[in-house]
Amino acid sequence: MKKYNIVTIGGGTGSFTLLSGLKKYPVNISAIVSMADDGGSTGRLRDELGVLPPGDVRQCLVALSEESKTLRELMSYRFENGGLEGHSFGNIFLSALEKMEKSFSGGVKEAAKILRIKGEVIPVIDGNVRMHIKLNNDKIIVGENNLDKNEEIRKIGIKEIFLQPSVFANKEAIKKIKEADLVIIGPGDYFGSIVPNFLARGIPKSLRETKAKIIYVCNLTNKKGQTDNFSLEKYVEEINKLIKKERIDAVIFNNKKINASLIKRYEKREGKNSVVKIENKKVKNYKILQVDLVNGAKKGLLCKEQSFIRHDSVKLARAIMELQSFLCN
Amino acid sequence: MKKYNIVTIGGGTGSFTLLSGLKKYPVNISAIVSMADDGGSTGRLRDELGVLPPGDVRQCLVALSEESKTLRELMSYRFENGGLEGHSFGNIFLSALEKMEKSFSGGVKEAAKILRIKGEVIPVIDGNVRMHIKLNNDKIIVGENNLDKNEEIRKIGIKEIFLQPSVFANKEAIKKIKEADLVIIGPGDYFGSIVPNFLARGIPKSLRETKAKIIYVCNLTNKKGQTDNFSLEKYVEEINKLIKKERIDAVIFNNKKINASLIKRYEKREGKNSVVKIENKKVKNYKILQVDLVNGAKKGLLCKEQSFIRHDSVKLARAIMELQSFLCN
Repeated sequence: MKKYNIVTIGGGTGSFTLLSGLKKYPVNISAIVSMADDGGSTGRLRDELGVLPPGDVRQCLVALSEESKTLRELMSYRFENGGLEGHSFGNIFLSALEKMEKSFSGGVKEAAKILRIKGEVIPVIDGNVRMHIKLNNDKIIVGENNLDKNEEIRKIGIKEIFLQPSVFANKEAIKKIKEADLVIIGPGDYFGSIVPNFLARGIPKSLRETKAKIIYVCNLTNKKGQTDNFSLEKYVEEINKLIKKERIDAVIFNNKKINASLIKRYEKREGKNSVVKIENKKVKNYKILQVDLVNGAKKGLLCKEQSFIRHDSVKLARAIMELQSFLCN
Repeated sequence: MKKYNIVTIGGGTGSFTLLSGLKKYPVNISAIVSMADDGGSTGRLRDELGVLPPGDVRQCLVALSEESKTLRELMSYRFENGGLEGHSFGNIFLSALEKMEKSFSGGVKEAAKILRIKGEVIPVIDGNVRMHIKLNNDKIIVGENNLDKNEEIRKIGIKEIFLQPSVFANKEAIKKIKEADLVIIGPGDYFGSIVPNFLARGIPKSLRETKAKIIYVCNLTNKKGQTDNFSLEKYVEEINKLIKKERIDAVIFNNKKINASLIKRYEKREGKNSVVKIENKKVKNYKILQVDLVNGAKKGLLCKEQSFIRHDSVKLARAIMELQSFLCN
């Protein structure tokens, strides 16, 4: 049986969820990861050590690791006090390896060996860039860490983002996209984790040219000032614009009804339509697979209801494998 | 062929050298390690995180690790700037594992698995103690980190050291000493790495009672204010006093002539007789194996001569295995 080459494009928690599920299937995985993070532990390491952002890559490495539970937990351990407070151990680990190997990609390769990962994790770029956020009033705010917490962004809204300096994508990322049978975009924060990958020069072209089928895992929720009122159709349209071609073959979309009080909580914070909807069901250029994708409520003594609307790794991977056999055969 | 149980007692660089050589032989190694360090990276982690001192244990783990060169080098990597400046990555690694496992010994066990070590590393105690240094004028100075840099210590000299609070040795350490065929004391700083092990309650008794042969690897050099004018005989006498019984069966002593200019440099800093000598050769209660033990000069463009008087791991391990077959058969 042919082992399919799957490339994922994303970053952060979304990629962690996707890869954790996907690694249980007999496929070759290459995870291309956004490199725009500059907040928290990652931001401090960038500033103080001059390293590239380890956070997103770390999450993908842990997701694909076949090492012991202890080692995987260690990589996600956060220090709670002293000079190391707030640092994730795994971020320090990647930064030390980058310093030793004198390149981020080199450090990631060594980390991948130590963590015995299934597949590959490829930082989309190997350069030091900062995300520039252009608001609807043309003001520019620098730093990915502003996305979720800056009140101006939430009020005025984002027109576009760009990376400075503009850099070429890692050759390895381009190569893997070209050789892929299937490319999966998302899940992940639209501006925080998805778009930065398309801003690495060469990525849109390779997506236009690859023979791979392309699946988009549609976001579950919208963010105020970033993706207000985005529908499934709007996400697809925007991503096709980033690729500069109508390339998306299929979309995976959640059809499981979400708890009303949870929606209410999201709408209070992120505005109306903060749960992504489908606009209409007329024929489109892409298939839509609608299934239950959400992470079940973790009920207990302290937590009587679900507090986040998130993808479930098992359900998501199953849906992708279903779509793959439909698209690739 | 019987696989001998060897227990080493020491800490720091001395144990690193010994264990690096010893691990190449078919023996069971248990390294008992001093836990009094409170300087540098280790001291900061103790103060800020409330962890136990990782530095000495880290060096022993790296020495016994059968993992890749990269992983071993990573454990010794030191950050050069930012908030992590001066920290050894391996120390951070052990501190994170201690926090996760909620005990230092538990953390060391997990580290041993991750680093695939040959044998075992056992912290001599599992409690948080400070070294108290009593000077010849009865003044007490607290903190192991003072040993080498405190001018008062260098001038007035040490009468004795003790740990506060007084704690029992790890049961595992006692057990290993009881089951040992051979116990090796040293090499290592006398007050910094050797004596603290004997201050853990239960260690002297277990050494009095074990059927193991005991070898002492004699120090090569003395330190001002600490071991001024100590001879081989004096070291043995002092260690037997710590054990409270004449238990040392054999001593390994360097007979390789050391470069005169190097001796001069040491004497300038550490006083006369800073290279340890044998007082006389009359019959003693212990054997003395005299061989070349010193680390050869690393000559090069930038380093025209040897700058430290240190044991060589290969020569030391070979001498120990020779003595072992003489003593244990």
